[in-house]
Amino acid sequence: MVHKLTAEARQQFFADHPAWKEAEGKDAAETTLTFADFNEAWGFMSRVAVYADKHDHHPEWFNVYNRVEITLTTHDAGGLSERDEKMAAFIDRIRG
Amino acid sequence: MVHKLTAEARQQFFADHPAWKEAEGKDAAETTLTFADFNEAWGFMSRVAVYADKHDHHPEWFNVYNRVEITLTTHDAGGLSERDEKMAAFIDRIRG
Repeated sequence: MVHKLTAEARQQFFADHPAWKEAEGKDAAETTLTFADFNEAWGFMSRVAVYADKHDHHPEWFNVYNRVEITLTTHDAGGLSERDEKMAAFIDRIRG
Repeated sequence: MVHKLTAEARQQFFADHPAWKEAEGKDAAETTLTFADFNEAWGFMSRVAVYADKHDHHPEWFNVYNRVEITLTTHDAGGLSERDEKMAAFIDRIRG
Protein backbone atom coordinates (compact mmCIF):
# COMPACT_ATOMS: atom_id res chain seq x y z
CA MET A 1 0.00 0.00 0.00
CA VAL A 2 1.38 3.34 -1.01
CA HIS A 3 0.25 6.62 0.58
CA LYS A 4 0.17 10.17 -0.67
CA LEU A 5 2.95 12.39 0.57
CA THR A 6 2.01 14.45 3.59
CA ALA A 7 1.71 18.20 3.04
CA GLU A 8 5.17 18.65 4.52
CA ALA A 9 6.75 15.91 2.41
CA ARG A 10 5.08 17.34 -0.67
CA GLN A 11 6.55 20.75 0.01
CA GLN A 12 9.93 19.14 0.55
CA PHE A 13 9.60 17.31 -2.76
CA PHE A 14 9.33 20.54 -4.74
CA ALA A 15 12.09 22.15 -2.68
CA ASP A 16 14.40 19.18 -3.38
CA HIS A 17 13.50 18.96 -7.08
CA PRO A 18 13.41 22.51 -8.47
CA ALA A 19 13.10 21.26 -12.07
CA TRP A 20 9.63 19.97 -11.19
CA LYS A 21 6.49 22.02 -10.72
CA GLU A 22 3.01 21.26 -9.46
CA ALA A 23 0.68 20.15 -12.23
CA GLU A 24 -2.44 22.22 -12.71
CA GLY A 25 -5.69 20.58 -11.67
CA LYS A 26 -4.21 17.39 -10.26
CA ASP A 27 -1.94 16.20 -7.48
CA ALA A 28 1.08 15.56 -9.69
CA ALA A 29 4.53 16.89 -10.57
CA GLU A 30 5.66 17.76 -14.06
CA THR A 31 8.85 18.64 -15.87
CA THR A 32 9.99 19.29 -19.43
CA LEU A 33 13.33 18.16 -20.84
CA THR A 34 14.96 19.24 -24.07
CA PHE A 35 17.68 17.24 -25.77
CA ALA A 36 19.94 17.73 -28.79
CA ASP A 37 17.74 15.58 -31.01
CA PHE A 38 15.31 12.66 -31.04
CA ASN A 39 18.07 10.08 -30.67
CA GLU A 40 19.23 11.66 -27.41
CA ALA A 41 15.66 12.11 -26.15
CA TRP A 42 14.94 8.46 -26.89
CA GLY A 43 18.09 7.34 -25.07
CA PHE A 44 16.86 9.21 -22.00
CA MET A 45 13.35 7.78 -22.31
CA SER A 46 14.77 4.27 -22.60
CA ARG A 47 16.59 4.67 -19.30
CA VAL A 48 13.39 5.88 -17.63
CA ALA A 49 11.44 3.00 -19.22
CA VAL A 50 13.80 0.41 -17.77
CA TYR A 51 13.47 2.08 -14.36
CA ALA A 52 9.67 2.19 -14.73
CA ASP A 53 9.33 -1.46 -15.65
CA LYS A 54 11.66 -2.54 -12.84
CA HIS A 55 9.80 -0.54 -10.19
CA ASP A 56 6.34 -1.07 -11.68
CA HIS A 57 5.75 2.66 -11.56
CA HIS A 58 5.09 4.48 -14.80
CA PRO A 59 5.24 8.08 -15.95
CA GLU A 60 2.69 9.88 -18.07
CA TRP A 61 4.82 11.35 -20.79
CA PHE A 62 4.71 13.12 -24.10
CA ASN A 63 7.49 13.31 -26.67
CA VAL A 64 7.95 15.17 -29.90
CA TYR A 65 11.40 15.15 -31.49
CA ASN A 66 13.84 16.43 -28.83
CA ARG A 67 11.26 17.39 -26.19
CA VAL A 68 9.97 15.17 -23.39
CA GLU A 69 7.22 16.27 -20.99
CA ILE A 70 6.75 14.09 -17.93
CA THR A 71 3.97 14.01 -15.34
CA LEU A 72 4.38 11.92 -12.21
CA THR A 73 1.58 10.82 -9.94
CA THR A 74 0.55 7.62 -8.20
CA HIS A 75 -2.95 6.53 -9.15
CA ASP A 76 -3.14 3.99 -6.31
CA ALA A 77 -2.40 6.75 -3.81
CA GLY A 78 -4.53 9.44 -5.44
CA GLY A 79 -1.60 11.81 -5.77
CA LEU A 80 2.13 12.28 -5.35
CA SER A 81 3.78 9.50 -3.39
CA GLU A 82 7.21 8.26 -2.43
CA ARG A 83 7.31 6.35 -5.73
CA ASP A 84 7.14 9.61 -7.63
CA GLU A 85 9.82 11.08 -5.44
CA LYS A 86 12.15 8.19 -6.24
CA MET A 87 11.40 8.39 -9.95
CA ALA A 88 11.95 12.17 -9.98
CA ALA A 89 15.27 11.68 -8.20
CA PHE A 90 16.29 9.09 -10.82
CA ILE A 91 15.27 11.40 -13.67
CA ASP A 92 17.13 14.34 -12.15
CA ARG A 93 20.24 12.17 -11.81
CA ILE A 94 20.28 11.26 -15.52
CA ARG A 95 18.83 14.42 -17.09
CA GLY A 96 22.35 15.75 -17.56
CA MET B 1 10.97 19.26 -50.07
CA VAL B 2 7.90 17.49 -48.84
CA HIS B 3 4.37 18.58 -49.77
CA LYS B 4 1.04 18.22 -48.04
CA LEU B 5 -1.18 15.48 -49.36
CA THR B 6 -3.72 16.69 -51.90
CA ALA B 7 -7.36 16.64 -50.78
CA GLU B 8 -7.86 13.38 -52.69
CA ALA B 9 -4.74 11.73 -51.24
CA ARG B 10 -5.77 12.85 -47.76
CA GLN B 11 -9.19 11.26 -48.19
CA GLN B 12 -7.50 8.11 -49.44
CA PHE B 13 -5.21 8.10 -46.41
CA PHE B 14 -8.12 7.85 -43.97
CA ALA B 15 -9.86 5.30 -46.18
CA ASP B 16 -6.72 3.14 -46.25
CA HIS B 17 -6.00 3.52 -42.52
CA PRO B 18 -9.30 3.14 -40.65
CA ALA B 19 -7.53 3.07 -37.25
CA TRP B 20 -6.58 6.70 -37.78
CA LYS B 21 -8.85 9.71 -37.50
CA GLU B 22 -8.46 13.38 -38.32
CA ALA B 23 -7.07 15.38 -35.42
CA GLU B 24 -9.22 18.25 -34.21
CA GLY B 25 -7.92 21.71 -34.96
CA LYS B 26 -4.90 20.68 -37.00
CA ASP B 27 -4.00 18.91 -40.22
CA ALA B 28 -2.88 15.68 -38.59
CA ALA B 29 -3.89 12.05 -38.06
CA GLU B 30 -4.16 10.39 -34.68
CA THR B 31 -4.61 6.92 -33.27
CA THR B 32 -4.67 5.25 -29.87
CA LEU B 33 -3.16 1.84 -29.14
CA THR B 34 -3.67 -0.30 -26.06
CA PHE B 35 -1.29 -3.08 -25.07
CA ALA B 36 -1.21 -5.76 -22.39
CA ASP B 37 1.11 -3.75 -20.18
CA PHE B 38 3.88 -1.14 -20.20
CA ASN B 39 6.51 -3.63 -21.34
CA GLU B 40 4.54 -4.43 -24.48
CA ALA B 41 3.73 -0.77 -25.12
CA TRP B 42 7.40 0.10 -24.79
CA GLY B 43 8.39 -2.65 -27.21
CA PHE B 44 6.02 -1.16 -29.77
CA MET B 45 7.30 2.37 -29.14
CA SER B 46 10.88 1.18 -29.56
CA ARG B 47 10.10 -0.18 -33.00
CA VAL B 48 8.48 3.12 -34.00
CA ALA B 49 11.47 5.03 -32.55
CA VAL B 50 13.93 3.08 -34.69
CA TYR B 51 11.77 3.77 -37.74
CA ALA B 52 11.51 7.46 -36.80
CA ASP B 53 15.24 7.93 -36.35
CA LYS B 54 16.01 6.10 -39.59
CA HIS B 55 13.54 8.16 -41.64
CA ASP B 56 14.11 11.41 -39.74
CA HIS B 57 10.38 11.74 -39.25
CA HIS B 58 9.02 11.81 -35.72
CA PRO B 59 5.65 11.23 -34.12
CA GLU B 60 4.04 13.34 -31.42
CA TRP B 61 3.11 10.73 -28.88
CA PHE B 62 1.86 10.26 -25.36
CA ASN B 63 2.19 7.15 -23.23
CA VAL B 64 0.86 6.11 -19.88
CA TYR B 65 1.28 2.49 -18.82
CA ASN B 66 -0.25 0.33 -21.61
CA ARG B 67 -1.71 3.18 -23.69
CA VAL B 68 -0.01 5.02 -26.56
CA GLU B 69 -1.59 7.99 -28.35
CA ILE B 70 0.08 9.03 -31.58
CA THR B 71 -0.37 12.15 -33.71
CA LEU B 72 1.25 12.33 -37.13
CA THR B 73 1.85 15.50 -39.09
CA THR B 74 4.71 16.99 -41.08
CA HIS B 75 5.74 20.39 -39.79
CA ASP B 76 7.82 21.15 -42.89
CA ALA B 77 4.76 20.55 -45.06
CA GLY B 78 2.24 22.25 -42.77
CA GLY B 79 0.10 19.14 -42.55
CA LEU B 80 -0.25 15.49 -43.45
CA SER B 81 2.30 14.33 -46.02
CA GLU B 82 3.56 11.16 -47.63
CA ARG B 83 5.95 10.76 -44.69
CA ASP B 84 2.99 10.41 -42.34
CA GLU B 85 1.35 7.96 -44.68
CA LYS B 86 4.45 5.76 -44.65
CA MET B 87 4.77 5.96 -40.89
CA ALA B 88 1.07 5.15 -40.40
CA ALA B 89 1.46 2.14 -42.70
CA PHE B 90 4.45 0.96 -40.66
CA ILE B 91 2.56 1.42 -37.39
CA ASP B 92 -0.49 -0.42 -38.74
CA ARG B 93 1.76 -3.29 -39.84
CA ILE B 94 3.22 -3.79 -36.34
CA ARG B 95 0.26 -2.80 -34.15
CA GLY B 96 -0.81 -6.45 -34.02
